[in-house]
Amino acid sequence: MIPIDDTPIVRDGRVLILAMDHGLEHGPGDFKNVPDKLDPTTVFDIATHDAVTAMAVQKGVAEEYYPSYEDDVNLLAKINGTSNLWMGEPDSAVNWSVEYAAELGADAVGFTVYSGSNHEVEMFEEFRDVQEQAREHDLPVVMWSYPRGQGVKNDTKPSTISYATRIALELGADVAKVKYPGSKEAMAHAVRCAGGVKAVMSGGSKTSDHKFLSTVEAVMDAGAKGLAVGRNVWQREDPTRLLDALEKIVHESETADTALEA
Amino acid sequence: MIPIDDTPIVRDGRVLILAMDHGLEHGPGDFKNVPDKLDPTTVFDIATHDAVTAMAVQKGVAEEYYPSYEDDVNLLAKINGTSNLWMGEPDSAVNWSVEYAAELGADAVGFTVYSGSNHEVEMFEEFRDVQEQAREHDLPVVMWSYPRGQGVKNDTKPSTISYATRIALELGADVAKVKYPGSKEAMAHAVRCAGGVKAVMSGGSKTSDHKFLSTVEAVMDAGAKGLAVGRNVWQREDPTRLLDALEKIVHESETADTALEA
Amino acid sequence: MIPIDDTPIVRDGRVLILAMDHGLEHGPGDFKNVPDKLDPTTVFDIATHDAVTAMAVQKGVAEEYYPSYEDDVNLLAKINGTSNLWMGEPDSAVNWSVEYAAELGADAVGFTVYSGSNHEVEMFEEFRDVQEQAREHDLPVVMWSYPRGQGVKNDTKPSTISYATRIALELGADVAKVKYPGSKEAMAHAVRCAGGVKAVMSGGSKTSDHKFLSTVEAVMDAGAKGLAVGRNVWQREDPTRLLDALEKIVHESETADTALEA
Amino acid sequence: MIPIDDTPIVRDGRVLILAMDHGLEHGPGDFKNVPDKLDPTTVFDIATHDAVTAMAVQKGVAEEYYPSYEDDVNLLAKINGTSNLWMGEPDSAVNWSVEYAAELGADAVGFTVYSGSNHEVEMFEEFRDVQEQAREHDLPVVMWSYPRGQGVKNDTKPSTISYATRIALELGADVAKVKYPGSKEAMAHAVRCAGGVKAVMSGGSKTSDHKFLSTVEAVMDAGAKGLAVGRNVWQREDPTRLLDALEKIVHESETADTALEA
Amino acid sequence: MIPIDDTPIVRDGRVLILAMDHGLEHGPGDFKNVPDKLDPTTVFDIATHDAVTAMAVQKGVAEEYYPSYEDDVNLLAKINGTSNLWMGEPDSAVNWSVEYAAELGADAVGFTVYSGSNHEVEMFEEFRDVQEQAREHDLPVVMWSYPRGQGVKNDTKPSTISYATRIALELGADVAKVKYPGSKEAMAHAVRCAGGVKAVMSGGSKTSDHKFLSTVEAVMDAGAKGLAVGRNVWQREDPTRLLDALEKIVHESETADTALEA
Repeated sequence: MIPIDDTPIVRDGRVLILAMDHGLEHGPGDFKNVPDKLDPTTVFDIATHDAVTAMAVQKGVAEEYYPSYEDDVNLLAKINGTSNLWMGEPDSAVNWSVEYAAELGADAVGFTVYSGSNHEVEMFEEFRDVQEQAREHDLPVVMWSYPRGQGVKNDTKPSTISYATRIALELGADVAKVKYPGSKEAMAHAVRCAGGVKAVMSGGSKTSDHKFLSTVEAVMDAGAKGLAVGRNVWQREDPTRLLDALEKIVHESETADTALEA
Repeated sequence: MIPIDDTPIVRDGRVLILAMDHGLEHGPGDFKNVPDKLDPTTVFDIATHDAVTAMAVQKGVAEEYYPSYEDDVNLLAKINGTSNLWMGEPDSAVNWSVEYAAELGADAVGFTVYSGSNHEVEMFEEFRDVQEQAREHDLPVVMWSYPRGQGVKNDTKPSTISYATRIALELGADVAKVKYPGSKEAMAHAVRCAGGVKAVMSGGSKTSDHKFLSTVEAVMDAGAKGLAVGRNVWQREDPTRLLDALEKIVHESETADTALEA
Repeated sequence: MIPIDDTPIVRDGRVLILAMDHGLEHGPGDFKNVPDKLDPTTVFDIATHDAVTAMAVQKGVAEEYYPSYEDDVNLLAKINGTSNLWMGEPDSAVNWSVEYAAELGADAVGFTVYSGSNHEVEMFEEFRDVQEQAREHDLPVVMWSYPRGQGVKNDTKPSTISYATRIALELGADVAKVKYPGSKEAMAHAVRCAGGVKAVMSGGSKTSDHKFLSTVEAVMDAGAKGLAVGRNVWQREDPTRLLDALEKIVHESETADTALEA
Repeated sequence: MIPIDDTPIVRDGRVLILAMDHGLEHGPGDFKNVPDKLDPTTVFDIATHDAVTAMAVQKGVAEEYYPSYEDDVNLLAKINGTSNLWMGEPDSAVNWSVEYAAELGADAVGFTVYSGSNHEVEMFEEFRDVQEQAREHDLPVVMWSYPRGQGVKNDTKPSTISYATRIALELGADVAKVKYPGSKEAMAHAVRCAGGVKAVMSGGSKTSDHKFLSTVEAVMDAGAKGLAVGRNVWQREDPTRLLDALEKIVHESETADTALEA
Repeated sequence: MIPIDDTPIVRDGRVLILAMDHGLEHGPGDFKNVPDKLDPTTVFDIATHDAVTAMAVQKGVAEEYYPSYEDDVNLLAKINGTSNLWMGEPDSAVNWSVEYAAELGADAVGFTVYSGSNHEVEMFEEFRDVQEQAREHDLPVVMWSYPRGQGVKNDTKPSTISYATRIALELGADVAKVKYPGSKEAMAHAVRCAGGVKAVMSGGSKTSDHKFLSTVEAVMDAGAKGLAVGRNVWQREDPTRLLDALEKIVHESETADTALEA
């Protein structure tokens, strides 16, 4: 872990990552109801919202669109990723060198680790290289810490999520992006397991405003340091309105109800 | 993506690649009815047509024949390729270093990616290296984006082709060469999924003049930026006549009927 | 083997390693009854005890917490490790480069080798690299020598443990951390097999004070040069009291009874 | 392909390679009836015949014996090879670096490629490295182009051999060493598929003088540029007599009958 | 092959290697009846006998004990090795870099190759690297040439041993260490297959003085250049007496009977 509170991807100790790598990970189907969002500029525009501390994209999207947004958006270079056509044990290709990410102006790097997969050993070792190269460039490292595969029966149960945040700490991440373990108590335990690493919740698939924001409130109450969100923002009709609400909950510690009323 | 409109392989924003790596990918059988084309000079001669913006060949063919054509043909170095004797999951050997391709005068590099194969992760990572090395040499990158293998039931259905162009965007290609998804609408969707990446259609096996040109017209109408064609040109008795027609459709936005009448 | 008696991790020829990599190897479950120990500072505090000659942690824990303890604790960089979600043949990911461990101030490196696993060959070769890099930095090497996997029916029988210490000698470790083979005689044989390499016992899961300390006494009587302990210290209510006793047995050659009475 | 007609391994456009790597590929059994040939000097002596343009051996044989023959024999460094104890899919170990081959005075390098094997991709990539390194040393590259393995039912049928020569062209060999496809017509087609690459026939197991020389005549008539021969020369009682005949057929375009009469 | 007759590991053209890597390859069980030999100094002391031209040990043993013997013993660095807990196809881990072996004062390197194993290709390639690196340090290379695994039914039959010595020649070893093929005639054939490479017999498990020395006599009569022996020396009560006898047979060409009488 490095002191990341002074880095651009953190605002007063909190992190709000807008993720848009779904075109690779899930395919164009994720954009079915929001076809205009297939144009990455629409999502980069959303990412200029003050609530967003970084936008996570794959290399190709960064190469083409980031130059126009580098003054207004912080770039979280998502280093690895795989299509959902992949039928093997969970794995993720390293699509971007840290060196080149830094050259393109990345403010941080992101890396998925599927602990429990029969590719765990290989992914840990790839993470090692990425983490140590990121250190040379003074870039914070966000681990998408997702236990999955042959060794994992339930990928959101409390003990899995606590293990996920702990692995992020042990291996040297600065931020641990994990799924919601189902309760505030479970999230609080996961936060404790993370030590000084910032645990943030992964947004997941789109739900109602109230359900989503209440979960975020619970997560922040549990001591988490923020959120990484994609579909719950850009699949909405009015992403700005939701980001306004998230700004209150994540950055200003307000409740979901207050935030929704505003 | 890099600004490729000023590079030699693009003419007024459009691309027309003449491909001749069939000797490796399919074997000499593809030349059965045009045995004179076994001599690569005959195909290089065709590639001097104004409509053609680049010719795609493997390293050995480039080494031997390109020096005589470097003033008249732009070289698209096809970096990987495999024989059709290969019985494993779709894969492609990296037969050419980018460094050596640049030394031989390549104007662009081409690379096949079989998303969905159990070699997807490995191929994505090979693509990463090739793409980043190409950037160092300011060479555009064309992805032969062909989902195939254990994870792909139908390699030309609309959602597969849209995913194919999106993968090209996400991973950092400049041009996405994809199969025809069966309709103009499907192609238009694939074009939208490609963002700023130029989607071009892969010619496929030989069909009648009218059928082939009509498909090209539909593809261009759908917003594609060109074509990569091999057998539909050099397996014909009069390749020049077909290239004349393609020039009208691809570069001058005319219809297939007009082009055929000319 | 290098002359390690003058290095910080040895005190008068003896070694007492406090290990805390259980968050990675076993998961947060190991901290269930001592939730405060999830905060690594609590274990680093314990490691400041005079009896402890080094503390073994993974990279991430070292990065975040070691800077505050570098004057009071000697760092044993545990180079490899795997989660217990891993379902394959015993293996361990290399999570930390020796170069970076040295940069963070490591006083020694630790590496797990699962002889008998179908990853034995690969792990031996990884050990080679780590050992030779450690030599360049004058860092002692501790081998967690744990025969396990397809080739090992019983991982604590006397012949297994003797083989474990011998492998540490043959491959160039300075300290061999092995499980207790069940008797003083068996431990004495394992010590002889280690040649000049210091054999130390691995503490294992928590047992009663008397049982644990009696085993330590037997091990020291057998000629071992110390102990590597984790749960038997920090899972206890009063770790200091146990370390006081261990100091007497390990460093002052007293009996378990005398040590417990004090 | 490089201009190899001026290199030592070519005489007036023709190539006659004497191969002696059978001790590795087949084992000592190939020397059963000619035990004196187990001493490589006997075969090097044969290679001093004017008809022979290069001798192909493995590294160890070159290291020990070539220094005494470097003025009289051109060295073709056979880079890869495997014992016939190997039971896996066809594969070949890379036993010699091109760098070291050049240092030992190699005039050319040779490399086996088993297209169709499930090691095809790996072998193509090894060939890439060898070919590009050979280019740096201005060394011609001879491909032992032998389709074999899971993807190949018949390794000498015409379409297989035509594919073999074409693969040599596509991947950048200068000489394609292939088995005889059974007829002059088939060989002529294989020659056409090779483009500017010199196709040469692989001698195979020992046959009668007349049968062997007639085949060589047919092969040369078909446009091949020579021969790579081993057992059909050094398993004979009088290798010189056969080389005299081969000189006439390969280098002087005479018939087998004329050559035999001489 | 390099001119090794002037190197320290050869005495008047003959080689007598004392091997002691059994602690790794077989485990401590080999020392059951000679427990004092678990201390490597006892075996190094034996190696100071004039008959011994080199002692073969693994890295860890060399690191710890060789510095005290470097004036009296020549070091043969055994580069690879595996425990007998390994249950996979025959393979051997590369435990020592040649660079570091040279730094520790090695006079030669040794490497095991299991031809016929499904790791043959990989082991040949590892041997390549070791052999070429040894050349850079002017170190002779001893191949433990042991056909074994899926491709080998009988690992001591004459044709296997002849193949073993030939492989050593083809791949570039200077000394071929092989098992006894059962008769003087078979050994003589293996010697002929080795060309200029020195064939030496591997001692194997302990037998009676007379049986062992008679075999050595037969092997030397067959033209072998020496012996590599371990258990037949240091498992004996009086190793010096046996080495006195071996000196006569190996270095002075006397018979076993004469040697035993002395």
